[in-house]
Amino acid sequence: MTATTPADLWPEVRPEAARRLLLAAVEAFAERGYHATTTRDIATAAGMSPAALYVHYPSKAALLSEISSTGHQQTLALVEAAAAAEGGPVRRMRRLVEDFTAWHARAHTIGRIVQYELHALPPEDYAAVVELRRRIEETVRTLISEGQASGAFDVPDVRTAARAVLSLGIDVVRWYHERTAEPPEELGRRYADLVLRMLGAPAGA
Amino acid sequence: MTATTPADLWPEVRPEAARRLLLAAVEAFAERGYHATTTRDIATAAGMSPAALYVHYPSKAALLSEISSTGHQQTLALVEAAAAAEGGPVRRMRRLVEDFTAWHARAHTIGRIVQYELHALPPEDYAAVVELRRRIEETVRTLISEGQASGAFDVPDVRTAARAVLSLGIDVVRWYHERTAEPPEELGRRYADLVLRMLGAPAGA
Repeated sequence: MTATTPADLWPEVRPEAARRLLLAAVEAFAERGYHATTTRDIATAAGMSPAALYVHYPSKAALLSEISSTGHQQTLALVEAAAAAEGGPVRRMRRLVEDFTAWHARAHTIGRIVQYELHALPPEDYAAVVELRRRIEETVRTLISEGQASGAFDVPDVRTAARAVLSLGIDVVRWYHERTAEPPEELGRRYADLVLRMLGAPAGA
Repeated sequence: MTATTPADLWPEVRPEAARRLLLAAVEAFAERGYHATTTRDIATAAGMSPAALYVHYPSKAALLSEISSTGHQQTLALVEAAAAAEGGPVRRMRRLVEDFTAWHARAHTIGRIVQYELHALPPEDYAAVVELRRRIEETVRTLISEGQASGAFDVPDVRTAARAVLSLGIDVVRWYHERTAEPPEELGRRYADLVLRMLGAPAGA
């Protein structure tokens, strides 16, 4: 399995201390939940003092916001890239589901924090993340509608179909773990097959 | 919308004080997470003293276990009832997805606790819940295999298909809220349509 460690998700975060704090925050939030984690826990896990943490992040919420906004930006980027790629709607939807599913399998620890602690975000950061989510959903809806218009897809309700496509991918973070038999890419391919059937794409499309 | 309040999930829990504690625990866990909730929070919300709480539940973990095991028993019961009902695999799968989806929409607050705090369960209770989950998955797999054998379904991989069926229903607890446009039953019908396509059931089956 190609493991994406949380570190891979912040390749450009500098200085190194800030990146170490993000990694420590992911570990701590995943282990005991956001509310039960203190900034001291995070600082200690990163081998720093609480005062040193505040140099980089003014609060625990600022760390959560950075984790959440990075996760959402990355998934939006891959969804938009797939939707804008070459080829017809079936081919682009296949890539979208493969990439979206594999991302959530690889980054399942971060994904759980991103998905389940949404309401702990400060209001402004929450609004920004809601906007990213809206764009992700809209991209998927537009692609389904396009396929619907060209005859590639045939669904009774575009909104429900788009939600189901994203739901399948997102829920991977809940059940995926290091010992899951399918590598992220293989799971992505299987889910893409299922999604294309769900969207009424002709068999073998 | 037919709202299932948490109270409806423990119709037979007596005395009333025990039921009130379960309701207060659901509220508190949903609001601030399991780890950050104290038994004092729960007792206070139920209008009781911590000492009075311990008369009914020896610990916060005992409350979580009761919530989790009731939720899993109820979903197992409806999955087994649908799988054992009259009719062919398509008809039974339709009922299974409708009931499973509607349950998770109605009980989304409890569902979040049941799904996301699984690892906070004491080891023995965790093992019991894992066994209930195994039976739910096995029931779905068996129904898909039956449909596969009779020609009603046609999936490349029964395990992945069963996981996707359950995943769609379970993920409803993450995004469903009181203002969602579709009532639980309507969402169940739409998801059943999508799932039957995913399983390769002939259109209009």
